[in-house]
Amino acid sequence: MPVCDSRRVRVIGIGTGSPAHVTGQAISALRECDVFLVADKGEVKDELVAVRRAICEEFLDEGSYRIVPVTDPERGPDAERDRTAYRAGVDAWHAARADRYAEIIASLPEGETVGFLVWGDPAFYDSTIRIVDAVAERLPLDVRVVAGLSAIQVLAAEHGIVLNGIGQPVHVTTGRRLLDEWAPELGTVVVMLDGSLKCRELVERAPDLVIHWGAYLGLPQQVLRSGRLADVIDELIDLRAQLREEHGWIMDTYALTTASAPHPA
Amino acid sequence: MPVCDSRRVRVIGIGTGSPAHVTGQAISALRECDVFLVADKGEVKDELVAVRRAICEEFLDEGSYRIVPVTDPERGPDAERDRTAYRAGVDAWHAARADRYAEIIASLPEGETVGFLVWGDPAFYDSTIRIVDAVAERLPLDVRVVAGLSAIQVLAAEHGIVLNGIGQPVHVTTGRRLLDEWAPELGTVVVMLDGSLKCRELVERAPDLVIHWGAYLGLPQQVLRSGRLADVIDELIDLRAQLREEHGWIMDTYALTTASAPHPA
Repeated sequence: MPVCDSRRVRVIGIGTGSPAHVTGQAISALRECDVFLVADKGEVKDELVAVRRAICEEFLDEGSYRIVPVTDPERGPDAERDRTAYRAGVDAWHAARADRYAEIIASLPEGETVGFLVWGDPAFYDSTIRIVDAVAERLPLDVRVVAGLSAIQVLAAEHGIVLNGIGQPVHVTTGRRLLDEWAPELGTVVVMLDGSLKCRELVERAPDLVIHWGAYLGLPQQVLRSGRLADVIDELIDLRAQLREEHGWIMDTYALTTASAPHPA
Repeated sequence: MPVCDSRRVRVIGIGTGSPAHVTGQAISALRECDVFLVADKGEVKDELVAVRRAICEEFLDEGSYRIVPVTDPERGPDAERDRTAYRAGVDAWHAARADRYAEIIASLPEGETVGFLVWGDPAFYDSTIRIVDAVAERLPLDVRVVAGLSAIQVLAAEHGIVLNGIGQPVHVTTGRRLLDEWAPELGTVVVMLDGSLKCRELVERAPDLVIHWGAYLGLPQQVLRSGRLADVIDELIDLRAQLREEHGWIMDTYALTTASAPHPA
């Protein structure tokens, strides 16, 4: 590997798909970049790559940048594994990704700035910063991170709700952990990465839960639903399956609050 | 009160002070507004009103809008009260605010659109949506909310960290609740509205905690510190007092992670 100055890397949160989510700071960072590395997750998520392309076209001059798709390493099925194995599998997969990215970045012309377009906010349930930090162990990097609107925020704004009850907490967790973790003391619970609306299992434990759900947040096909969990969950499960079928993929998130909490509808 | 069409109200998250935080969606919403109602919290927070003015000046044509300061109703001291009394006090104070806002909005020329510029994100620890919902019980309103970057996100981006550990939760709470709530199972704990760095009390219970702290996030006077809580907390308490003295006010937030969690520095 050649000795060289630090490579400039910009990790840029672009919001959840609407070009209107992009901040001025993000636009400036986009303009600093010569090349964008975009993880290619296979045809299912082609639309997400298309959205990133559309954002570049919206804010950058044609010919002023390149988009380089990076194929993800293979990742074994992990749904049945325990947490330690899950964690180890994720770590190994991140290392393989970091090697691949380091190789690509090292091969770029000297002086070029590398951009990563992050769906939502790089600080929430996104692996880009971890990958870049791993690359930084292999190559000298000068990294700057720009925050973007997360799905959590777009969910709340589109429903017109405050996430926290007055003086109360907000807990953000994954579908995988929800059933073990859920307790009323957590305040509003926002669930990310839930492939099967596991909140259905909470209906008996917490009959007063209210759900605010959103899919494709910020995109033209955005869908919102809300109501008492017990009343709407079956319809929601059907709707989610139907949308997934129709679009070929789905990204959704939801917030659970207790009806007694002071949340406007 | 005259019978009239719904009054258009836009609740606009503007980020934490830097005009570069403002999204395209927020700029469009700003341009829809004829009049901005800005809570006047007394001279201490004059600077926050000045930042809102600066954002209007940055994105809007002179003479195309008005800014109307609204004096907050009196609020009794609540630091020593229990939680129920605290909650009741907050409710009464919000009702008095809602009356005041309803009166002002009702007196505006018909057809004008009202904007609220919200520091950070309206979904996190901000009372604007609650006030607007209370006003909507008094007047017909057509409300739209636009998300903005929260201090939580700017904190993470400026430190270059992911908030969640891999597959782990993120818990957002207040200084008031931190000591009762904190537990390692909560994952990263982000603390808002803490006037006295209560995390100091956690040093003995959790000697491995790491803090990422930021004040005036996004403003020119932004200050960041991070390190092992036990090592940096005394210096941080002094620094916070000194900054508060120097600027006349302080807004800060912090994230607590366990050192073993996979958070890049």
